[in-house]
Amino acid sequence: MPSIFSKIVAGEIPCHKVAETDKYLAFLDINPVAPGHVLCIPKHEVDYIFDLDDEEYLGLMAFAKKVAQGLKHAVPCRKVGVTVLGLEVPHAHVHLVPMRTEADMDFHHKSNPSADELAAMAKKISERIQL
Amino acid sequence: MPSIFSKIVAGEIPCHKVAETDKYLAFLDINPVAPGHVLCIPKHEVDYIFDLDDEEYLGLMAFAKKVAQGLKHAVPCRKVGVTVLGLEVPHAHVHLVPMRTEADMDFHHKSNPSADELAAMAKKISERIQL
Repeated sequence: MPSIFSKIVAGEIPCHKVAETDKYLAFLDINPVAPGHVLCIPKHEVDYIFDLDDEEYLGLMAFAKKVAQGLKHAVPCRKVGVTVLGLEVPHAHVHLVPMRTEADMDFHHKSNPSADELAAMAKKISERIQL
Repeated sequence: MPSIFSKIVAGEIPCHKVAETDKYLAFLDINPVAPGHVLCIPKHEVDYIFDLDDEEYLGLMAFAKKVAQGLKHAVPCRKVGVTVLGLEVPHAHVHLVPMRTEADMDFHHKSNPSADELAAMAKKISERIQL
Protein backbone atom coordinates (compact mmCIF):
# COMPACT_ATOMS: atom_id res chain seq x y z
CA MET A 1 0.00 0.00 0.00
CA PRO A 2 1.43 3.43 -0.86
CA SER A 3 2.43 5.65 2.07
CA ILE A 4 0.39 8.73 2.92
CA PHE A 5 3.25 10.75 1.38
CA SER A 6 3.06 8.79 -1.88
CA LYS A 7 -0.66 9.60 -1.94
CA ILE A 8 0.27 13.29 -1.55
CA VAL A 9 2.80 12.97 -4.39
CA ALA A 10 0.12 11.35 -6.55
CA GLY A 11 -2.34 14.16 -5.75
CA GLU A 12 -4.75 11.76 -4.05
CA ILE A 13 -4.38 13.65 -0.76
CA PRO A 14 -3.99 17.45 -0.83
CA CYS A 15 -1.03 19.25 0.75
CA HIS A 16 0.16 22.78 1.34
CA LYS A 17 3.07 22.65 -1.09
CA VAL A 18 6.04 25.00 -0.70
CA ALA A 19 8.47 23.60 -3.31
CA GLU A 20 8.70 20.81 -5.88
CA THR A 21 11.14 19.34 -8.37
CA ASP A 22 10.79 16.25 -10.54
CA LYS A 23 12.26 14.14 -7.69
CA TYR A 24 11.41 15.94 -4.44
CA LEU A 25 8.47 17.64 -2.75
CA ALA A 26 8.26 20.03 0.22
CA PHE A 27 5.00 20.78 2.00
CA LEU A 28 3.76 21.99 5.38
CA ASP A 29 3.36 19.60 8.30
CA ILE A 30 -0.34 19.96 9.17
CA ASN A 31 0.56 19.61 12.87
CA PRO A 32 3.58 21.92 13.09
CA VAL A 33 5.80 21.95 16.16
CA ALA A 34 6.50 25.60 15.28
CA PRO A 35 5.05 27.90 12.59
CA GLY A 36 6.54 27.12 9.17
CA HIS A 37 7.32 23.45 9.92
CA VAL A 38 8.03 21.83 6.53
CA LEU A 39 8.54 18.24 5.39
CA CYS A 40 10.88 17.43 2.48
CA ILE A 41 10.45 14.04 0.84
CA PRO A 42 11.74 12.08 -2.14
CA LYS A 43 8.85 11.30 -4.46
CA HIS A 44 10.27 7.81 -4.73
CA GLU A 45 8.95 5.91 -1.71
CA VAL A 46 11.75 4.54 0.47
CA ASP A 47 11.15 3.95 4.18
CA TYR A 48 14.57 4.65 5.74
CA ILE A 49 16.49 7.74 4.63
CA PHE A 50 19.85 5.96 4.74
CA ASP A 51 18.52 3.29 2.37
CA LEU A 52 18.27 5.93 -0.39
CA ASP A 53 21.18 5.59 -2.80
CA ASP A 54 23.82 8.31 -2.53
CA GLU A 55 22.53 10.31 -5.49
CA GLU A 56 18.93 10.42 -4.28
CA TYR A 57 19.93 10.98 -0.64
CA LEU A 58 22.28 13.87 -1.47
CA GLY A 59 19.71 15.28 -3.89
CA LEU A 60 17.17 15.29 -1.05
CA MET A 61 19.61 17.02 1.31
CA ALA A 62 20.50 19.63 -1.35
CA PHE A 63 16.77 20.23 -1.92
CA ALA A 64 16.24 20.56 1.86
CA LYS A 65 19.02 23.18 2.04
CA LYS A 66 17.32 25.35 -0.59
CA VAL A 67 13.96 24.99 1.14
CA ALA A 68 15.57 25.85 4.51
CA GLN A 69 17.18 28.97 3.09
CA GLY A 70 13.84 30.21 1.76
CA LEU A 71 12.13 29.23 5.00
CA LYS A 72 14.58 31.31 7.05
CA HIS A 73 13.75 34.36 4.94
CA ALA A 74 10.01 33.75 5.20
CA VAL A 75 9.65 32.92 8.91
CA PRO A 76 11.58 34.89 11.55
CA CYS A 77 13.90 32.50 13.42
CA ARG A 78 17.46 32.02 14.64
CA LYS A 79 18.12 28.92 12.55
CA VAL A 80 16.17 26.27 10.70
CA GLY A 81 16.49 22.98 12.59
CA VAL A 82 16.57 19.59 10.88
CA THR A 83 15.18 16.29 12.13
CA VAL A 84 14.70 12.89 10.58
CA LEU A 85 12.81 10.45 12.81
CA GLY A 86 10.78 8.20 10.56
CA LEU A 87 9.23 5.76 13.00
CA GLU A 88 5.64 6.79 12.16
CA VAL A 89 5.37 7.23 8.38
CA PRO A 90 7.39 4.64 6.40
CA HIS A 91 8.48 7.13 3.72
CA ALA A 92 11.71 9.06 4.34
CA HIS A 93 11.08 12.70 5.28
CA VAL A 94 13.21 15.55 6.55
CA HIS A 95 11.56 17.91 9.04
CA LEU A 96 12.64 21.55 8.74
CA VAL A 97 11.59 23.75 11.66
CA PRO A 98 12.21 27.49 12.06
CA MET A 99 13.66 27.70 15.59
CA ARG A 100 13.69 30.61 17.95
CA THR A 101 14.62 28.31 20.85
CA GLU A 102 15.42 24.59 21.04
CA ALA A 103 11.94 24.16 22.55
CA ASP A 104 10.61 24.81 19.04
CA MET A 105 11.96 21.36 18.10
CA ASP A 106 9.95 19.60 20.80
CA PHE A 107 7.95 16.99 18.91
CA HIS A 108 5.65 16.53 21.91
CA HIS A 109 4.08 19.93 21.28
CA LYS A 110 2.25 19.99 17.98
CA SER A 111 -0.29 22.62 16.97
CA ASN A 112 -3.35 22.41 14.79
CA PRO A 113 -3.64 25.50 12.53
CA SER A 114 -6.61 25.99 10.22
CA ALA A 115 -6.42 25.22 6.50
CA ASP A 116 -6.50 28.98 5.81
CA GLU A 117 -3.57 29.58 8.14
CA LEU A 118 -1.60 26.77 6.49
CA ALA A 119 -2.40 28.06 3.00
CA ALA A 120 -1.21 31.56 3.90
CA MET A 121 1.99 30.16 5.44
CA ALA A 122 2.69 27.94 2.42
CA LYS A 123 2.28 30.90 0.06
CA LYS A 124 4.63 33.06 2.14
CA ILE A 125 7.31 30.35 2.23
CA SER A 126 7.03 29.26 -1.39
CA GLU A 127 7.59 32.83 -2.54
CA ARG A 128 11.00 32.86 -0.83
CA ILE A 129 12.34 29.51 -2.08
CA GLN A 130 14.71 29.57 -5.05
CA LEU A 131 15.33 26.09 -6.46
CA MET B 1 37.64 32.14 20.08
CA PRO B 2 37.51 28.64 18.58
CA SER B 3 34.44 26.54 19.36
CA ILE B 4 34.68 23.56 21.69
CA PHE B 5 34.45 21.40 18.57
CA SER B 6 37.38 23.19 16.92
CA LYS B 7 39.35 22.45 20.12
CA ILE B 8 38.41 18.79 19.71
CA VAL B 9 39.54 18.88 16.05
CA ALA B 10 42.83 20.48 17.16
CA GLY B 11 43.34 17.78 19.82
CA GLU B 12 43.20 20.33 22.65
CA ILE B 13 40.14 18.60 24.11
CA PRO B 14 39.89 14.79 23.93
CA CYS B 15 36.96 13.00 22.33
CA HIS B 16 35.73 9.45 21.79
CA LYS B 17 36.29 9.39 18.02
CA VAL B 18 34.35 6.97 15.82
CA ALA B 19 35.36 8.17 12.32
CA GLU B 20 37.50 10.82 10.65
CA THR B 21 38.42 12.10 7.19
CA ASP B 22 40.54 15.10 6.23
CA LYS B 23 37.40 17.29 6.34
CA TYR B 24 35.01 15.68 8.83
CA LEU B 25 35.05 14.15 12.31
CA ALA B 26 32.55 11.92 14.15
CA PHE B 27 32.70 11.34 17.90
CA LEU B 28 30.42 10.35 20.76
CA ASP B 29 28.22 12.90 22.50
CA ILE B 30 29.38 12.69 26.12
CA ASN B 31 25.77 13.20 27.26
CA PRO B 32 23.95 10.83 24.92
CA VAL B 33 20.17 10.90 24.61
CA ALA B 34 20.46 7.19 23.72
CA PRO B 35 23.43 4.78 23.71
CA GLY B 36 25.60 5.36 20.64
CA HIS B 37 24.65 9.03 20.14
CA VAL B 38 27.25 10.44 17.71
CA LEU B 39 28.05 13.96 16.51
CA CYS B 40 29.34 14.55 12.96
CA ILE B 41 31.07 17.88 12.29
CA PRO B 42 32.98 19.64 9.54
CA LYS B 43 36.50 20.39 10.78
CA HIS B 44 36.09 23.83 9.24
CA GLU B 45 34.26 25.92 11.84
CA VAL B 46 30.98 27.31 10.51
CA ASP B 47 28.13 28.10 12.92
CA TYR B 48 25.02 27.37 10.84
CA ILE B 49 24.87 24.19 8.78
CA PHE B 50 23.07 25.87 5.86
CA ASP B 51 25.87 28.46 5.65
CA LEU B 52 28.27 25.68 4.57
CA ASP B 53 28.84 25.83 0.82
CA ASP B 54 27.16 23.05 -1.15
CA GLU B 55 30.30 20.93 -1.49
CA GLU B 56 31.13 20.98 2.22
CA TYR B 57 27.49 20.57 3.28
CA LEU B 58 26.89 17.59 0.99
CA GLY B 59 30.26 16.13 2.01
CA LEU B 60 29.15 16.34 5.64
CA MET B 61 25.82 14.66 4.86
CA ALA B 62 27.55 11.90 2.86
CA PHE B 63 29.95 11.36 5.78
CA ALA B 64 26.99 11.25 8.22
CA LYS B 65 25.32 8.57 6.07
CA LYS B 66 28.38 6.32 6.27
CA VAL B 67 28.64 6.85 10.01
CA ALA B 68 24.91 6.13 10.44
CA GLN B 69 25.20 2.90 8.47
CA GLY B 70 28.03 1.68 10.71
CA LEU B 71 26.19 2.87 13.80
CA LYS B 72 23.10 0.84 12.86
CA HIS B 73 25.24 -2.30 12.64
CA ALA B 74 26.99 -1.56 15.95
CA VAL B 75 24.03 -0.54 18.12
CA PRO B 76 20.71 -2.44 17.95
CA CYS B 77 17.98 -0.01 16.82
CA ARG B 78 15.08 0.42 14.39
CA LYS B 79 16.64 3.39 12.59
CA VAL B 80 19.31 6.00 13.15
CA GLY B 81 17.63 9.37 13.70
CA VAL B 82 19.15 12.66 12.56
CA THR B 83 18.90 16.07 14.24
CA VAL B 84 20.57 19.41 13.66
CA LEU B 85 19.71 21.99 16.30
CA GLY B 86 22.76 24.19 16.76
CA LEU B 87 21.54 26.81 19.21
CA GLU B 88 24.10 25.83 21.89
CA VAL B 89 27.47 25.19 20.20
CA PRO B 90 28.17 27.62 17.31
CA HIS B 91 29.81 24.97 15.12
CA ALA B 92 27.56 22.98 12.78
CA HIS B 93 26.98 19.42 13.99
CA VAL B 94 24.72 16.57 12.98
CA HIS B 95 23.37 14.39 15.80
CA LEU B 96 22.96 10.71 14.91
CA VAL B 97 20.94 8.71 17.42
CA PRO B 98 20.17 4.96 17.30
CA MET B 99 16.41 4.91 17.90
CA ARG B 100 14.29 2.11 19.26
CA THR B 101 11.39 4.54 19.84
CA GLU B 102 10.92 8.24 19.07
CA ALA B 103 11.46 8.87 22.79
CA ASP B 104 15.13 8.07 22.15
CA MET B 105 15.33 11.41 20.33
CA ASP B 106 14.12 13.38 23.36
CA PHE B 107 16.86 15.94 23.97
CA HIS B 108 15.52 16.63 27.46
CA HIS B 109 16.76 13.24 28.65
CA LYS B 110 20.53 13.04 28.50
CA SER B 111 22.63 10.44 30.26
CA ASN B 112 26.10 10.62 31.72
CA PRO B 113 28.08 7.44 30.97
CA SER B 114 31.58 6.89 32.34
CA ALA B 115 34.68 7.48 30.21
CA ASP B 116 35.21 3.71 30.11
CA GLU B 117 31.68 3.12 28.85
CA LEU B 118 32.13 5.80 26.16
CA ALA B 119 35.50 4.35 25.11
CA ALA B 120 34.00 0.87 24.74
CA MET B 121 31.06 2.25 22.73
CA ALA B 122 33.35 4.30 20.45
CA LYS B 123 35.48 1.22 19.74
CA LYS B 124 32.42 -0.89 18.92
CA ILE B 125 31.01 1.75 16.54
CA SER B 126 34.30 2.66 14.83
CA GLU B 127 34.87 -0.99 13.95
CA ARG B 128 31.63 -1.03 11.94
CA ILE B 129 32.12 2.21 9.96
CA GLN B 130 33.40 1.96 6.40
CA LEU B 131 34.40 5.34 4.95
